[in-house]
Amino acid sequence: MYIKEDALNYHLGGKISVEPTKNMDSSSDLSLAYSPGVAEPCLEIAKNEDLAYTYTTKANLVAIVSDGSAVLGLGNIGPSASKPVMEGKACLFKKFANVNAFDLEINAHSIEEIVTFCKFLAPSVGGINLEDIAAPKCFEIEAALQDLGIPVMHDDQHGTAIISTAGLMNAMELSGKKFKDIKVVISGAGAAGVASARMYRNLGVENIILVDSKGVINKERKDLNSYKLEFVSDTKDKTLKEALKGADVFLGLSAPKILDDEMILSMAKDPVIFALANPVPEVMPEDVIRLRKDAIIGTGRSDYPNQINNVLGFPFIFRGALDVRATKITENMKIAAAKALADLAKLPVSNEVKKAYNLSNLEFGREYVIPKPFDERVKAIVSTAVASAAVKDKVARIANFNEKEYFESLK
Amino acid sequence: MYIKEDALNYHLGGKISVEPTKNMDSSSDLSLAYSPGVAEPCLEIAKNEDLAYTYTTKANLVAIVSDGSAVLGLGNIGPSASKPVMEGKACLFKKFANVNAFDLEINAHSIEEIVTFCKFLAPSVGGINLEDIAAPKCFEIEAALQDLGIPVMHDDQHGTAIISTAGLMNAMELSGKKFKDIKVVISGAGAAGVASARMYRNLGVENIILVDSKGVINKERKDLNSYKLEFVSDTKDKTLKEALKGADVFLGLSAPKILDDEMILSMAKDPVIFALANPVPEVMPEDVIRLRKDAIIGTGRSDYPNQINNVLGFPFIFRGALDVRATKITENMKIAAAKALADLAKLPVSNEVKKAYNLSNLEFGREYVIPKPFDERVKAIVSTAVASAAVKDKVARIANFNEKEYFESLK
Repeated sequence: MYIKEDALNYHLGGKISVEPTKNMDSSSDLSLAYSPGVAEPCLEIAKNEDLAYTYTTKANLVAIVSDGSAVLGLGNIGPSASKPVMEGKACLFKKFANVNAFDLEINAHSIEEIVTFCKFLAPSVGGINLEDIAAPKCFEIEAALQDLGIPVMHDDQHGTAIISTAGLMNAMELSGKKFKDIKVVISGAGAAGVASARMYRNLGVENIILVDSKGVINKERKDLNSYKLEFVSDTKDKTLKEALKGADVFLGLSAPKILDDEMILSMAKDPVIFALANPVPEVMPEDVIRLRKDAIIGTGRSDYPNQINNVLGFPFIFRGALDVRATKITENMKIAAAKALADLAKLPVSNEVKKAYNLSNLEFGREYVIPKPFDERVKAIVSTAVASAAVKDKVARIANFNEKEYFESLK
Repeated sequence: MYIKEDALNYHLGGKISVEPTKNMDSSSDLSLAYSPGVAEPCLEIAKNEDLAYTYTTKANLVAIVSDGSAVLGLGNIGPSASKPVMEGKACLFKKFANVNAFDLEINAHSIEEIVTFCKFLAPSVGGINLEDIAAPKCFEIEAALQDLGIPVMHDDQHGTAIISTAGLMNAMELSGKKFKDIKVVISGAGAAGVASARMYRNLGVENIILVDSKGVINKERKDLNSYKLEFVSDTKDKTLKEALKGADVFLGLSAPKILDDEMILSMAKDPVIFALANPVPEVMPEDVIRLRKDAIIGTGRSDYPNQINNVLGFPFIFRGALDVRATKITENMKIAAAKALADLAKLPVSNEVKKAYNLSNLEFGREYVIPKPFDERVKAIVSTAVASAAVKDKVARIANFNEKEYFESLK
């Protein structure tokens, strides 16, 4: 896949730069860009703060804020060590959705400190992507920032929720099951687990069992935070193995290779197994296929079918939110993103996409329920869905949104 | 000069963008830039925090932080309205010294809030340029951040101090005066006035009279903050007019056209008049020349000789400080920058520079005591002086600094 030296060499000097976008080559350019010409946009914005969206980068600018407390598979490595991840995120924002993003790795760790930092920061940017902040504090931090007047989203929560929901919508269509009837088992009750459970519940799933490192979250547990308490199950099952019996869906956000043959065989007909531990999933796809031809399998990896990758979400969610100057990212906007991704997987892909992934089967079906990150249609389709949902939810600040024109402008 | 519409059109969509600097075109690029390859530099930095300078943009990254409380000639216009100025500053950092800089306009206004924000921010960046923060709080804020481990400088204070010092050094050489003998009158006792007074004092000037909007800062004043108290004068003069009698130097950081003929005529032989109110200075150069052929005149404007422009300072001060990974910017580093600028003005300029400025006389003398911003030699000469001073002051964190090699690398 890669060797350590390649990865380190790739990172020498970092991965982003800040560039002027206007001419700055002469004394007269300077008199426009800086003193005295710059006073004009300043005075306009002083009269009408919304003009910051017109005369500055704000309309297309997201800050990626992290305290480095829950980084990828690395855990609490702190702000400095998390910087390569956040710079990478900034690159993905630009590459996939043309959003300018810079990364702020902060030496602020309590809920109050991180909230304070973001409130101070708010006038600078058009949106804030909270990243790699540990559960459960991430929930309260995100909630406290919903009235800031700009979109604030903790991607670790909603990215996985949205992309897995897209896959789940299509899996349900393939197996003919309904959300209200299925049993979902989620292994991992951190940021992504709780947010996914919330989204599935909002879509009608009634039977959700969360499992954390101490076992099933049921009525016998006395050690639960308020977020886990939202999903206390009536079941007497104590272990993941017990919970998985008859389950229709497994969402793994936990640890490598924790599913054994017996567990896989115990699941319901047409089981959905989204094993997202990275790089080694809760079960390798080949070990499922060996046992069950009826399974729909997704992982976080690009070298297997159905990659559940956050990059299908956050760039376009912020693209759409920024373009209608949304004041927040609502649940409907997230569901619209999931729905758009699910719909897109049913359209034929281009030969370019097929070639890029070296996968034979990219036709809607068990091995293709989620679009590929490098599918260029994702940007226009998902961003438009998000922007339209913002308008419907009345959180957009621009007037006269024209969905068709907007969609065409992104293609 | 420019018309309002030009300035507004120039600013549409803002002036900066964030760009990936490495390939991001394929799935395998992604596996290096993001998951899973990104874990390698993260782990290295977790083991040794200094490696953030190697594997991220930190080594060449400055945050421009402002609360918008004292913007140019615009005053307290707040964070949003100050954004065009700060984006302009980011452009100047890149254009003149190849430093990546992004602007943070913060909704934090007390000393404690701004200090807290910068402390939280510190791991993200290689340095912090405080900008357009009102006096007197700016003094305490900057002082409180000197142990952050990265260079923190409030440019409104030190930029003017450094560039005017450079001009003053050369003016003294031309008139044969010594710092210890001269009388300096500074009109304006805000950030730049106090910092300039401090720097002149450090260079040996004993007779400094500060004048604020209420008159001369002398022993009869009962309304002085601790920063003005540093410069209480023994004089019985109450007004700027009285103070200017026999003065060798006038530094104007106050208001347009406040110097009349009588005041100019009352100054000592070979008077230095740096009239930096912008765009209309305390006195127009032609109104001085009409009265005194012996004057040395500087303004903030590019269309007159001797432009005292901060852009001659901050890009190169941070360039030098970043390149030796200085933990702070010391007084010696600032004085080294001033001295380097003064020395450079004594070297012949290229025909390109002459052409760029459309000024006939760019030879060392009364009309040319300070280099021009677009003189390409400024970068190597000033940055090297600053870096060398950091090494001498033992605030540099890199080992084996070679001044000559560094200088050559910047040319």
